[in-house]
Amino acid sequence: MKQFTSIDDIDNLTELLKLAAKIKQNPYNYKYLGKDKILCLLFFNPSLRTRLSTQKAALNLGMNTLVLNLNNESWAIEIENGSIMNKGTQEHIKEAARVISSYCDVIGIRTFAGMTNKIEDYQELILNKFISYATVPIISLESATLHPLQSLADLMTIEEQKKKSKIKVVLTWVPHSQSLPQAVANSFAEWVSKLDVEFVIANPPGFNLSKKYTKNALVTHNQNEALKEADFVYSKNWSSYENYGEIGNDFNNWMITKEKLKLTANAKFMHCLPIRRNVVASDTVIDSKDSLVIEQANNRTFAAQSVLFKLLQNEK
Amino acid sequence: MKQFTSIDDIDNLTELLKLAAKIKQNPYNYKYLGKDKILCLLFFNPSLRTRLSTQKAALNLGMNTLVLNLNNESWAIEIENGSIMNKGTQEHIKEAARVISSYCDVIGIRTFAGMTNKIEDYQELILNKFISYATVPIISLESATLHPLQSLADLMTIEEQKKKSKIKVVLTWVPHSQSLPQAVANSFAEWVSKLDVEFVIANPPGFNLSKKYTKNALVTHNQNEALKEADFVYSKNWSSYENYGEIGNDFNNWMITKEKLKLTANAKFMHCLPIRRNVVASDTVIDSKDSLVIEQANNRTFAAQSVLFKLLQNEK
Amino acid sequence: MKQFTSIDDIDNLTELLKLAAKIKQNPYNYKYLGKDKILCLLFFNPSLRTRLSTQKAALNLGMNTLVLNLNNESWAIEIENGSIMNKGTQEHIKEAARVISSYCDVIGIRTFAGMTNKIEDYQELILNKFISYATVPIISLESATLHPLQSLADLMTIEEQKKKSKIKVVLTWVPHSQSLPQAVANSFAEWVSKLDVEFVIANPPGFNLSKKYTKNALVTHNQNEALKEADFVYSKNWSSYENYGEIGNDFNNWMITKEKLKLTANAKFMHCLPIRRNVVASDTVIDSKDSLVIEQANNRTFAAQSVLFKLLQNEK
Repeated sequence: MKQFTSIDDIDNLTELLKLAAKIKQNPYNYKYLGKDKILCLLFFNPSLRTRLSTQKAALNLGMNTLVLNLNNESWAIEIENGSIMNKGTQEHIKEAARVISSYCDVIGIRTFAGMTNKIEDYQELILNKFISYATVPIISLESATLHPLQSLADLMTIEEQKKKSKIKVVLTWVPHSQSLPQAVANSFAEWVSKLDVEFVIANPPGFNLSKKYTKNALVTHNQNEALKEADFVYSKNWSSYENYGEIGNDFNNWMITKEKLKLTANAKFMHCLPIRRNVVASDTVIDSKDSLVIEQANNRTFAAQSVLFKLLQNEK
Repeated sequence: MKQFTSIDDIDNLTELLKLAAKIKQNPYNYKYLGKDKILCLLFFNPSLRTRLSTQKAALNLGMNTLVLNLNNESWAIEIENGSIMNKGTQEHIKEAARVISSYCDVIGIRTFAGMTNKIEDYQELILNKFISYATVPIISLESATLHPLQSLADLMTIEEQKKKSKIKVVLTWVPHSQSLPQAVANSFAEWVSKLDVEFVIANPPGFNLSKKYTKNALVTHNQNEALKEADFVYSKNWSSYENYGEIGNDFNNWMITKEKLKLTANAKFMHCLPIRRNVVASDTVIDSKDSLVIEQANNRTFAAQSVLFKLLQNEK
Repeated sequence: MKQFTSIDDIDNLTELLKLAAKIKQNPYNYKYLGKDKILCLLFFNPSLRTRLSTQKAALNLGMNTLVLNLNNESWAIEIENGSIMNKGTQEHIKEAARVISSYCDVIGIRTFAGMTNKIEDYQELILNKFISYATVPIISLESATLHPLQSLADLMTIEEQKKKSKIKVVLTWVPHSQSLPQAVANSFAEWVSKLDVEFVIANPPGFNLSKKYTKNALVTHNQNEALKEADFVYSKNWSSYENYGEIGNDFNNWMITKEKLKLTANAKFMHCLPIRRNVVASDTVIDSKDSLVIEQANNRTFAAQSVLFKLLQNEK
């Protein structure tokens, strides 16, 4: 593994999931790997799970971490090539990426979609420029279009919880009051499609994800139909990809409730968090014994740790 | 000790004060206790002493620390149960507390009083909800109504500095230009009342603290009377508990001066810091050799370290 | 070395440069020095290189670091003596410096010039008050008038890169759209003047630096003349010292270009970063193989590490 920004950076998903499970059993067994190594975590956007779990993952491996909030602790970053920097931006991403590389062994970077320009967001300008100028491996801590650490934790959780070999996994759109990126949904679709499962995506008309990530999935606009006999219901809002950034205010009845889950095969409920209670799903769903949201968050540590393990192992 | 949010969480105050003194002598003697343990510090409010001393305490014990500023680095927290989260808040305290618990072994949390709703503040909503959902021990880094780490450091300081067995301790209200919580004063009253000392509280009319914390103390509105023969003068402003949040602009003559301290038995001067010079007390008082404010702050490290020691010892 | 705030704190520059080079070869050889030691980094202003490189330097020496953003994580600091603190400031620098000293073994502090009051800026009020009240050694992470860690890294870089014994070093003013402090330029002038080199400073009329720092240098208003046969071109904007804080909008032709560098003896290009591309220097200059900007930034780690080494060695 040379970097970790999408499923394409992984040689062998099965092996990575086994590694993550093994690390979860004995998280401190590999502290020698991170000796005198530094992970630098760069945040353009808010973070709770990613911030804490990735730091914990590094500590478990004996690495040190340096955290930098790029929105308020450092300089405003320019990303355009050739620009005359006589306005608000103070430091070009070329220098930032190369300089930060000189202070650490791995860089993690969080940079959300701006949600106004679909083409720019899907070009992953900040992430890709950072990668092209950095001289150390990059881990995505959620980028404009993907959230692979979340997906790895989600797949770990499904593997741990599944009770039969052939399962049905449903990714369902849910309501939200803000215009959210498609990153978690794109990524989950991309990762789940590598598993030997029945995979259905349910979303309202106008809310289809980019075909790039959903090509192996059945997409339906009928949520109830999709939920039938599901073993795992992954709920997530995303704003429209087609009418970029549009919120689906007409589809508040897509909230996940106890009643809807009765259609499933006693499905486990999943969400990446943070979750807006009684908007995305009802309290009773989130608080039920079939909710996996806390375990998904817990697995973020071991997902990050297995990715760091692979990157550090390369260096040895 | 299962948690540390008030004096009620302590089995034996004398033993805890002895432990703190012992740790102060050899702060690095217990580094084995914190191996592979993580302390997560959550700040809803500003902090200098608490932030640094508690991190140092953890490092002295071999623990790692993760710091999260909840006001600007993460998501806006909802605390109401059953609310429909379609407004500004992004993550419910239920998930936040449970998820953060999965990333660490102890959580410290600072959450000031809002100073507008007395009932809510005194219910300690954020702290108590955090405790009820968290799955690891909680340390208060100052809550709406109490600041027990400060009180433990204050009692350590009194024990170190007292020159006779029977002493008189005075907690006196002092002026301030902002509406401050009662937390430090409530807490000091509660802790001092466990010691075998003469304890007097002096405050202007309308500024009595809640009887819950002052029941064993003599309360007077005559500051000069209170100061007579005092061995320790603990100065602290608090806004009115009775007329909740009201500032005592009519009582600027309650500032502690050299002249007032002449009434005492060469009393030591105490304050939790930060202190507004020449409002709370005059420069000459704060800068005198009888001022203990720096030593109180220094003892915050060993107060926190002895609390962490007790919590970590439980786990072994 | 008792502190590190200017060249005057150094006993022997040659020896310090040798130490820095030696540490760069084997950065982890001195981890015993920092055992159970804490470096506290205080930021009143933004920082990328200083923040990360100084933390890395401490980690390389086995020290722990505590970072505090004084502009938003803690209390507003008062620096006037004798003031009646009933306005916006909450904590006096007297208490802040003494209390922070009690939590660490070395303090690093960044505090930029305000750029409105030349006398106050050049008095270095915050830095000097911090030093006078602190009880542990202070490292400047850039102060109002000097940036010695940058200069040490710059001199390391020149020593590494020079190809003959007698070299010509030019410090040239360059354009900028904001009113920047003179700190980096003052400091570079002061440090380079200790080397056995030909040193020329080029700046527009009205932009002479304080003679205090440039007394050994030849100062010219003719940039082209200065660049002739230069081996190192150090570019840096500063606002006017004479007409304090004034920006030199009439001198945009002072930008460093490939054409200008043709006047030099294949000079290496230097800048402390962050650099405004195509304002300070053209893309082709910054991206050329003769640009040392990334190596200067890299050497910040070893500059900081050699300073920490000297301070820690004192304590043993």
